[in-house]
Amino acid sequence: MNPGFADRLSELIEKRNSSVVVGLDPDIDLLPHYLTDRLANISGADWFPAAANLVFDFGRQIVDAIFDVVPALKPQVAFYEALGPPGLIALQRTIDYARQKGLIVICDAKRNDIESTAVAYAESYLGPIGPHASRDCPFNVDALTVNPYLGSDGVLPFVQAAAATGKGIFVVVRTSNPSAAEFQDLPVLSNTGNTEPLCHIVAKKVQEWGAALTEGSRYSAVGAVVGATAPREAVALRRLMPSAFLLVPGVGAQGGDTNQLSVFFDERGSGALVSASRSLIFAYRQVPAREEAFQDMARAATIKLSATVNRARSDAAEKDRS
Amino acid sequence: MNPGFADRLSELIEKRNSSVVVGLDPDIDLLPHYLTDRLANISGADWFPAAANLVFDFGRQIVDAIFDVVPALKPQVAFYEALGPPGLIALQRTIDYARQKGLIVICDAKRNDIESTAVAYAESYLGPIGPHASRDCPFNVDALTVNPYLGSDGVLPFVQAAAATGKGIFVVVRTSNPSAAEFQDLPVLSNTGNTEPLCHIVAKKVQEWGAALTEGSRYSAVGAVVGATAPREAVALRRLMPSAFLLVPGVGAQGGDTNQLSVFFDERGSGALVSASRSLIFAYRQVPAREEAFQDMARAATIKLSATVNRARSDAAEKDRS
Repeated sequence: MNPGFADRLSELIEKRNSSVVVGLDPDIDLLPHYLTDRLANISGADWFPAAANLVFDFGRQIVDAIFDVVPALKPQVAFYEALGPPGLIALQRTIDYARQKGLIVICDAKRNDIESTAVAYAESYLGPIGPHASRDCPFNVDALTVNPYLGSDGVLPFVQAAAATGKGIFVVVRTSNPSAAEFQDLPVLSNTGNTEPLCHIVAKKVQEWGAALTEGSRYSAVGAVVGATAPREAVALRRLMPSAFLLVPGVGAQGGDTNQLSVFFDERGSGALVSASRSLIFAYRQVPAREEAFQDMARAATIKLSATVNRARSDAAEKDRS
Repeated sequence: MNPGFADRLSELIEKRNSSVVVGLDPDIDLLPHYLTDRLANISGADWFPAAANLVFDFGRQIVDAIFDVVPALKPQVAFYEALGPPGLIALQRTIDYARQKGLIVICDAKRNDIESTAVAYAESYLGPIGPHASRDCPFNVDALTVNPYLGSDGVLPFVQAAAATGKGIFVVVRTSNPSAAEFQDLPVLSNTGNTEPLCHIVAKKVQEWGAALTEGSRYSAVGAVVGATAPREAVALRRLMPSAFLLVPGVGAQGGDTNQLSVFFDERGSGALVSASRSLIFAYRQVPAREEAFQDMARAATIKLSATVNRARSDAAEKDRS
């Protein structure tokens, strides 16, 4: 039997000696000007395929710059969707190119719905299952982010598709944005009269949804998004979801503290993937005169973040031994 | 100044004498066999454009069958996304066709993210704004559904795009599925020591987000999704969101009780839109031998539901007078 998603991810993390996932957020306003200049004279419907080709080309060059130093790439669907159907062709090509280069591709789409609608989303990204199994997968990624607000009905179709295809999902549990606390940290009263934050209750469900899918690596196909900006919350969330691989956004541009990353990892320095997007792929913006060197600068920033994260992984392992 | 989204919707509801929105969920497994039979011999990459053309054609025929008896159409993006880029071309064509026929198009996509990513989604559906205002809108709908789990950061970019473009959003507050209660009804402890369900807190935020955008119809560009399967919850939610137009799914296939719909409407019989999908567009499945008559049966089912909903609107107005 082929290894499942969590095992494949764990193996590639060891092989690349990196727990960093490069977030590919190709916001066209932030791309190097020498690439986007050619769009200035194009308008109307012609703009979309031109912009989409450019975004594919940028993504391909980012993949070329980082594929041998990280295990995974996380394309953000919103920036492709904003370019219409040509943008989604660019997304398909980017996914295929990154996977050919050996990267695990985690699509950040935060999809959510119920019943046959959730199945349609799951099959779009994880692959057709059951009576549809002979069809191709339109956006053939290794894992997908999913929003849990609709409850089990909204998540289990994705879990079932992940189980059937050997792929994974990451359920959004505690995000990294300033207003994440607005709903996710609300104190929920339990039967015993105690309160716990909403995100803890979601976390327990994530553990429940994934428990049956635990793999050799100890982790399951059902991971969780837990932002780097809430390291105190993360200690509890790590404990509540022992089977969940954590996807940790919010370092870099969003200001999460890299010194506190050790809490996301287990005692083997495993079980988490730290995500950064703009601070890596747009590292060139620190020195605009050198925008032609965006690949070198993205690679250097990625290697530097991997080293920082590896210290956090060692700290996690140290803490456990002491 | 052009009327805003809530005013345009209110006017068209009066003009058509219907508060029903037809949900266009073109699940290819449920389409009439005489249409899908031709797909049987097509496989691999060729399947997607063939399936997408068929789905467009089915949607066009549904629009032809109902455009003069309802104010709005609600395409479900998941079923188009499942057909890859050709599916999203079919979505574009469906949106354009329905709007040309005078329908208000509400895209059910439940999108959610933060910062520039949320802006990218908002611009994809509601229209480019600010420095992007000269660009075309790739999926040019009148309104979009949005998931609130990420908090204000995740919703305000959509609110701002709606305000700038004269369009609308519907924030998912209380869904119609069996496990909606799992998170949405959890008792949250307030500062005063009382508890209230999570969805009430989300509802108060919806009211806050939309208050500044209230239009002549009394409603704002920020509506809310409240499922028909929770009529008791709806009484409180209607009260907590006086400015929010309610989008009410869950009648028909999901079993919501049409006798209890009056609680969703205000004392003028306004302020809500009842959504049904499979029970309308796939009404032909009640009598499979007549699948060629799917348009007539969809139209008849839609007119019947409009009449039922109109009785609920009258009841709401009666109740207020008594």
